[in-house]
Amino acid sequence: MVVGSMLHINGKPTVHFSCKSNHDRPSYIPKPTAVKMTTITTTTITTAPSILQPYWASLQADIEAHLKHVMPYKDPLVVFEPMHHLVFSAPRTTVPALCLAAGELLSGDRHQAMAAASALVLLLAANHTHEQIPSKPKPMSRPKSNTMSFRAFSPGIELMTGDGLIPFGFELLSRSCDSVQENSDRVLRVIIEISRAVGSKGLIDAQYKKKLLSESDGGESCHVERIMDIMEKNEGGLHACGASCGAVLGGGSEEEIERLRKFGFYVGMIQGMVNEGFWEEVEVVKDLAFKELQYFKDNNRDVDAISSFIIHV
Amino acid sequence: MVVGSMLHINGKPTVHFSCKSNHDRPSYIPKPTAVKMTTITTTTITTAPSILQPYWASLQADIEAHLKHVMPYKDPLVVFEPMHHLVFSAPRTTVPALCLAAGELLSGDRHQAMAAASALVLLLAANHTHEQIPSKPKPMSRPKSNTMSFRAFSPGIELMTGDGLIPFGFELLSRSCDSVQENSDRVLRVIIEISRAVGSKGLIDAQYKKKLLSESDGGESCHVERIMDIMEKNEGGLHACGASCGAVLGGGSEEEIERLRKFGFYVGMIQGMVNEGFWEEVEVVKDLAFKELQYFKDNNRDVDAISSFIIHV
Repeated sequence: MVVGSMLHINGKPTVHFSCKSNHDRPSYIPKPTAVKMTTITTTTITTAPSILQPYWASLQADIEAHLKHVMPYKDPLVVFEPMHHLVFSAPRTTVPALCLAAGELLSGDRHQAMAAASALVLLLAANHTHEQIPSKPKPMSRPKSNTMSFRAFSPGIELMTGDGLIPFGFELLSRSCDSVQENSDRVLRVIIEISRAVGSKGLIDAQYKKKLLSESDGGESCHVERIMDIMEKNEGGLHACGASCGAVLGGGSEEEIERLRKFGFYVGMIQGMVNEGFWEEVEVVKDLAFKELQYFKDNNRDVDAISSFIIHV
Repeated sequence: MVVGSMLHINGKPTVHFSCKSNHDRPSYIPKPTAVKMTTITTTTITTAPSILQPYWASLQADIEAHLKHVMPYKDPLVVFEPMHHLVFSAPRTTVPALCLAAGELLSGDRHQAMAAASALVLLLAANHTHEQIPSKPKPMSRPKSNTMSFRAFSPGIELMTGDGLIPFGFELLSRSCDSVQENSDRVLRVIIEISRAVGSKGLIDAQYKKKLLSESDGGESCHVERIMDIMEKNEGGLHACGASCGAVLGGGSEEEIERLRKFGFYVGMIQGMVNEGFWEEVEVVKDLAFKELQYFKDNNRDVDAISSFIIHV
């Protein structure tokens, strides 16, 4: 690792070192002590890898098909048009697909964790929608393509639609309870997992810290530490949640759930580190992720599919 | 009922008639055909009755004490200070107290439905917080009293805090699952009830329609119909949800749950009608509410306490 190398902020290269320890940080994650010749973008969000691997794309397609089925485009269009637009135009992340993949790894059924994966899509879309609401009103325009680079709806509609998507996500999950499987305890556990990951101590905390970081003047020497802290709750925390929820609904044991939680955390951290240019640390974390998968391989599980979440990054 | 009487909007008296039928409206609710000499306030929210009856106040105090216990004022204060402020300064409604009251009526234990009542407080506070976010930034000031007539936090913080409160409400509910009582199915049912009541087809829909109504020019003749439609999802729907959730967690049978849902709906409609000056209809709905309570009285339940929700309005 390069210590004390260049960090570009607002185009100005400065030298930064980590200046505090984070007692909450898992000790198995290497902490970059500095950032190497890369522009830090504090507005990065958890997005799908640029290479759309067939497995991820196939899982994502299944989730979207399911969402279109449970959330049909119907009257009142004034409600369902913005819901559809904001859900399907939000940046895709690998979090919901990893949830399905974890469920498939343990149960052999790709759709075992569909309710949790769908809820994650809805909650992350709601979060993204609210994150895009400007502090000052901007001109509206009609949607022309499948991107969010314009404002398709007024901030008021986006606020209300986001507020509608969140309970709908929890409703979908609760309705997935299956009396045959008697899985209500597992569904409740997933609700707790997701609530924590997207809540005040998870994603919301990361976004607040990201906001503070983007407003800071760049004169502090804690940037790397702060970026890692944000990454652990954003990319790391969300993927850990996705994988653990898939494991819970896939009928996993405590050991399996915790190993998949760690694997998911590494998947997210790898994505975050790639975005920030922490290349050396990426290889270390990939090794850690493979070690978690080795446990499943040793127990005769086919890990080829799920390992694509780290191989193709 | 007076048909075609005076409706004051923006100080200008006009005559209004209902102009369409609402097939979704329960037939047992009388629909005012016109509003009598009263100023319609489309910005009314569901608030507690002006007379704080001892029973309601006592239930509310218990819920707030519970919330302070599960949501302690702790570090990071940057997260918990706005959470506390926005939860405890939001307008109090009778919805959570009615939830506890319904649970107490059936189980004899006032705290049986505490998780649902607390979740309702959090979700309604989040909704109120988001509703107050201005479309244009306003000057901030520090909190001086227990009201929301000023902006204590920036819109960005209010948006994020609201987004944190919603999953926390669902987390509280999910965590309340009791392995001794084996009530996970009932908790999941409550999550569905609450999700629907506060979601796109419930409260959010009512707020959207309220927004449209407040922006209309007053030249239409459908105001009463539209006000009733909003009231049924806002005051009516939320109280129906509160009472039914209390009944579910109180161990109620399907008959008891549905009767308490209707009772809650009437409680909410009475409050809404009082706010709008639909006085004649209030008495009709009170009778309907008492009829639902009669069922419980006939089954040797003590309905004195819960009946205070309609007696003192």
